[in-house]
Amino acid sequence: MMKTLHVVKIGGNIIDNEAALLAFLKDFSQIPGDKILVHGGGKIATQMGEKLGIPQELIDGRRVTSAETLDLITMVYAGLIGKRIVALLQSLNTNALGLTGADGNAILGQKRLVKTVDYGFVADVEPSGVNQQAIQQWLSAGFTPVFAALSHDGQGHLLNTNADRVAAVLAMAMADTYEVHLKYCFEKNGVLQDIHDNDSYLRTLDKSQFESYVSQGIIQQGMIPKLDNAAQAAQKVASVGILHADHLLKSIQENTIYGTSIL
Amino acid sequence: MMKTLHVVKIGGNIIDNEAALLAFLKDFSQIPGDKILVHGGGKIATQMGEKLGIPQELIDGRRVTSAETLDLITMVYAGLIGKRIVALLQSLNTNALGLTGADGNAILGQKRLVKTVDYGFVADVEPSGVNQQAIQQWLSAGFTPVFAALSHDGQGHLLNTNADRVAAVLAMAMADTYEVHLKYCFEKNGVLQDIHDNDSYLRTLDKSQFESYVSQGIIQQGMIPKLDNAAQAAQKVASVGILHADHLLKSIQENTIYGTSIL
Repeated sequence: MMKTLHVVKIGGNIIDNEAALLAFLKDFSQIPGDKILVHGGGKIATQMGEKLGIPQELIDGRRVTSAETLDLITMVYAGLIGKRIVALLQSLNTNALGLTGADGNAILGQKRLVKTVDYGFVADVEPSGVNQQAIQQWLSAGFTPVFAALSHDGQGHLLNTNADRVAAVLAMAMADTYEVHLKYCFEKNGVLQDIHDNDSYLRTLDKSQFESYVSQGIIQQGMIPKLDNAAQAAQKVASVGILHADHLLKSIQENTIYGTSIL
Repeated sequence: MMKTLHVVKIGGNIIDNEAALLAFLKDFSQIPGDKILVHGGGKIATQMGEKLGIPQELIDGRRVTSAETLDLITMVYAGLIGKRIVALLQSLNTNALGLTGADGNAILGQKRLVKTVDYGFVADVEPSGVNQQAIQQWLSAGFTPVFAALSHDGQGHLLNTNADRVAAVLAMAMADTYEVHLKYCFEKNGVLQDIHDNDSYLRTLDKSQFESYVSQGIIQQGMIPKLDNAAQAAQKVASVGILHADHLLKSIQENTIYGTSIL
């Protein structure tokens, strides 16, 4: 029987709120067995960029990553947020390691080619870029990897990488050797049919429903790439859920997704 | 026979210079076998602090660490500099991990008690605070730990920690199981008798000479705590050297310290 591995992505609105982050980490630390945390840190990076006078440009919700912005993200994601999470998890008896895709050559990305838009130092990543051996070594030794949303190109450069995508490729790659459960945690109860009603979350979502909701405009904006990643991962891993951070631990303890199950 | 472990501390003036840093990392990556790198990043943190309007106060060459300054240091040391070094080392076939003392609970520190000066979020660290087992696991698995100068208190807080001290306690702790060679690399040829003459470096320095040079004012300022650490480590490890970064690889290859040997 394969061992269970929980891959959890935590969203920006939880990270931005100190009390919510601590509550989430307390729950995360209680997940039994092998686990991986993936985080971004969007708003804090944007605020720090303003303070430093680094203009932040978003195109279709994606951050255009100049060399200065890459430095900013490296500081904020891998430094400020990642290492703060690691210190908090250590106090909660979880033996965390604060990593990027460069650490241990864990996630090799490809700098995105310029088509219509030059996104700069941004990577596309695939499950084949994940170094399964390194991650297995960490997990087997009892460490809990905490990944900031950065990969590297193997040529000495870090690359900004979508955190939802990082979680998906980690989950898919590790599914070769683990029974992987992937959960996207954020401040809503799931994929909402009515954006103003937190109880309107879908209990399940399959591919044809997803396409239909997108065409109807019910699923919009940042939720679309998140669900693209979730749907792709669902082909390969044991379960994929999109749920409120407060419902993570209960969902794992009861082996039921209190949120939206991606089929 | 014990395995050899090289612990190398790299100074701020090398880190601040992109070409010098890359040249140093090329040499570091060629050190055979097990190795650990320790870095600070003083000037970049000071510059970033100015840009962010976080006033930086130094008392006797030590940085007073407010909560804001701790965040600044965490961003710059563990994020910007640490992860940039990791990405560069990966391109040089060195399987680096960018760590703080919180990662893997590697270095537990004690927040410095307020005597005459409140240094804020600053730690004192001892060899007993080093998690030998975690470091052995990383080294045995082929990873090269790259430590930013931060420890943690086990209660969820990172703490600013002198980089020379971090290198010394890592070297002393690991000397229980490795033949440890500790090298402090910077932009001078060694401990200079005449600060203006880079060729005036002492070939060797023992404890009584050190005390005499300090009382004569030949050894001054930041060099005093560095040498305190070096002298303490020399009691326990196989060799301690203070040398120019350009002379690191040659010193290791020829098993001779081209710089100042601390006896």
